[in-house]
Amino acid sequence: MEEKINLAEKLTLFADYWSPRTVANLNENSIMVVKVKGEFTWHKHDDTDDFFLVLKGRLTIQMPEREVVLGPGELFVVPRGIEHRPVAEEETHLLLIEPTGTPNTGDPATAVPQKFI
Amino acid sequence: MEEKINLAEKLTLFADYWSPRTVANLNENSIMVVKVKGEFTWHKHDDTDDFFLVLKGRLTIQMPEREVVLGPGELFVVPRGIEHRPVAEEETHLLLIEPTGTPNTGDPATAVPQKFI
Repeated sequence: MEEKINLAEKLTLFADYWSPRTVANLNENSIMVVKVKGEFTWHKHDDTDDFFLVLKGRLTIQMPEREVVLGPGELFVVPRGIEHRPVAEEETHLLLIEPTGTPNTGDPATAVPQKFI
Repeated sequence: MEEKINLAEKLTLFADYWSPRTVANLNENSIMVVKVKGEFTWHKHDDTDDFFLVLKGRLTIQMPEREVVLGPGELFVVPRGIEHRPVAEEETHLLLIEPTGTPNTGDPATAVPQKFI
């Protein structure tokens, strides 16, 4: 059976940005941690909402009509179909939840493969 | 469109134990916060895994063959079909994710109704 997951410990095991690591499965979803810094690409997911919870740092989620700025302990769900671009000025750690196999860029051609940790 | 969710702020808005509040929807799932203290009932969910992330405090999840003890920043997914009982000696704050409509006791007859906050 699975062990408990310590998110801070998992985040010590890698250093690259914008490359989520799956730490657990929840039904058909992947629970992931990711380190981000800088600007990601504008993208959208037509078939799924996009969950962001900040564990450390500060994340801006830009959308066409507005933006939200998240600190530790703050979450936001980008509704499916809404273009968005995550931006972090400093290194920021996130918890993500997405249906397993969701391309992180919104496009399988440019998405990073799923990595477990 | 939804606003960002500050989990600590949401947790100031209620005081009762074992009564999850839904703070956001993620596809067909409810993202919930809950305050717990004491022993919950033994139960299981045949159709869904059960996600627990400790935000504050300390949670023991008892299962027939073992138990896990979670502190802040630690999560555990109880696989579907596994009997479990959450126990907290001190007031403990959790983030839960479950398919919308999942009875918290595993049984619709005894479950608390879904509450939004």
